[in-house]
Amino acid sequence: MTRTAPRYSGVFPVVPTTFDEDGGLDLVSQRRALDFSIDAGSDGLCILANFSEQFALSDAERQEIMEVCLDHVAGRVPVIVAASHYSTRVTIERCRAAEARGAAMVMLMPPHYGGTVRVPEPAIRDYFAAVSDAIGIPIMVQDAPMSGTPLSVPFLASMAREIEQVSYFKIEVPQGSAKLEALIALGADAIEGPWSGEEGITLLADLDAGATGSMCGGGYPDGIGAILRAYRSGDRAVAVAAYQQWLPLILTENRQCGPAAAKVLMRHGGVIACDASRAPTPALPVAARTRLIEAAEALDPTVLRWTPQSTTQQDIMTGEMR
Amino acid sequence: MTRTAPRYSGVFPVVPTTFDEDGGLDLVSQRRALDFSIDAGSDGLCILANFSEQFALSDAERQEIMEVCLDHVAGRVPVIVAASHYSTRVTIERCRAAEARGAAMVMLMPPHYGGTVRVPEPAIRDYFAAVSDAIGIPIMVQDAPMSGTPLSVPFLASMAREIEQVSYFKIEVPQGSAKLEALIALGADAIEGPWSGEEGITLLADLDAGATGSMCGGGYPDGIGAILRAYRSGDRAVAVAAYQQWLPLILTENRQCGPAAAKVLMRHGGVIACDASRAPTPALPVAARTRLIEAAEALDPTVLRWTPQSTTQQDIMTGEMR
Repeated sequence: MTRTAPRYSGVFPVVPTTFDEDGGLDLVSQRRALDFSIDAGSDGLCILANFSEQFALSDAERQEIMEVCLDHVAGRVPVIVAASHYSTRVTIERCRAAEARGAAMVMLMPPHYGGTVRVPEPAIRDYFAAVSDAIGIPIMVQDAPMSGTPLSVPFLASMAREIEQVSYFKIEVPQGSAKLEALIALGADAIEGPWSGEEGITLLADLDAGATGSMCGGGYPDGIGAILRAYRSGDRAVAVAAYQQWLPLILTENRQCGPAAAKVLMRHGGVIACDASRAPTPALPVAARTRLIEAAEALDPTVLRWTPQSTTQQDIMTGEMR
Repeated sequence: MTRTAPRYSGVFPVVPTTFDEDGGLDLVSQRRALDFSIDAGSDGLCILANFSEQFALSDAERQEIMEVCLDHVAGRVPVIVAASHYSTRVTIERCRAAEARGAAMVMLMPPHYGGTVRVPEPAIRDYFAAVSDAIGIPIMVQDAPMSGTPLSVPFLASMAREIEQVSYFKIEVPQGSAKLEALIALGADAIEGPWSGEEGITLLADLDAGATGSMCGGGYPDGIGAILRAYRSGDRAVAVAAYQQWLPLILTENRQCGPAAAKVLMRHGGVIACDASRAPTPALPVAARTRLIEAAEALDPTVLRWTPQSTTQQDIMTGEMR
């Protein structure tokens, strides 16, 4: 296979949105979460994703988080901004704002609302085409159960061929590895970035299928990175061993914790001040929290022993963060 | 049954959000839609509902529509403002803004996002309780499949008893009439407003179950009102006849058209300038549009022959509106 090298590849964790105990934005913790993510070896970051609780934010908060994150990262790594909204018009506004602020890519689910509002393929195609026409950075299609919208491989491949910016695909549906493989086979060079998602739970199978990137949870990009870098260097046996080593933690995040995992680990490691999700999301059960930390401590991930590598960050470290 | 008279009852149509051909807000048509709705005999109105395509609006547009509508209605009839958002915090902000601007009531679905994010009963209860504590106007719980969240009768009744502002219930799930009857039986006086929804398709059964209000589509509040007023005056036979008379139109709206119905009728009658839904919602198929107009023309509804009754509205009538 003589595929063109993709513009973006590797480990792109989702950075959680950090709140204080009252549910307000905690921008000090937000910047520390970004610094940690970069220090832990991320090739890039994703903000405002579902694992960032994007659906719990107002438009104004979304804009504020985007500005704070892109300004603070300041080009150290590429940043993908998730920008899904039902309306084509609002999505375009969000994507233009992201590009103008320095986003490397935008990520979009197919348009949907609630348990029942879905749109047919021609309208999904028009939606992505209209966004593509409005921006000059790549679009990652997020193919996930949350949108409630099945996206067939032929449909995804045709969008990749026909819509300029549609070039990255994060596949996180059941049997996603086979879907990635089929998408690469059908879409060929139009599939610039076939990516793995869902916390890395299927990362090895996805890499075998041809994935070139992983959008994982935010807690341990060093662990996911160890798997991915070994695989990319051609040492599959090392990748298999690393995957098996990190699997209990990945599995605990994927099945027991969800979006809370990264924040619990970051709080436990002193990266952020508060690990609460915004209401009405219930608190993580104690058993899941205990299991997650136990699984992490066995692996000595960066998150549990991080101190900022950038001296400019020292001034915002305070005693009460621990 | 010695129920206390509810503060609000009768016909409360959902006012559509009016767009121009480019998907921008059309505020001239918006005000005319409000005037028509009042002139057609509405006891009150609902804005920013799902049938208003609320999920296609940005927060800023939502705020603008709310201000324009509440200012223009100016107390002529009570207005219910739908304010659903996943986040408790954002929902409270929306509800406070609605109350401050003069809303009579807010309407909320249980918190949800997309096809998969749902929260358990204790968190739903906390969500409504927090909103109730923040405002001084009643809350209508919208019990609809769109939220993907089953709400049991005992749970709804307990919220009605225990949460001050939770007092109105729009039931539009399958077998909703039986649910209304059970809710009234269990919740008694705490159920101030057991309401019918879903375009009036089950209105007669809902009235028999004890419904005191109907939140219907926006196209023909005169028709729904004829059914409801006959029933309330004790003349069930007239109500049954009126229901049967309007049923073909109700059914066409409910099964063939959805949110497009009110806009198509209003455009056909010259109330508004454009009946397009905002992208990516597909255009209504021609056959459904034809069937809808045919069903309406057989009934001579106000929407097809409306001229503003308020002289202050004459100046915004323009030739191209027809």
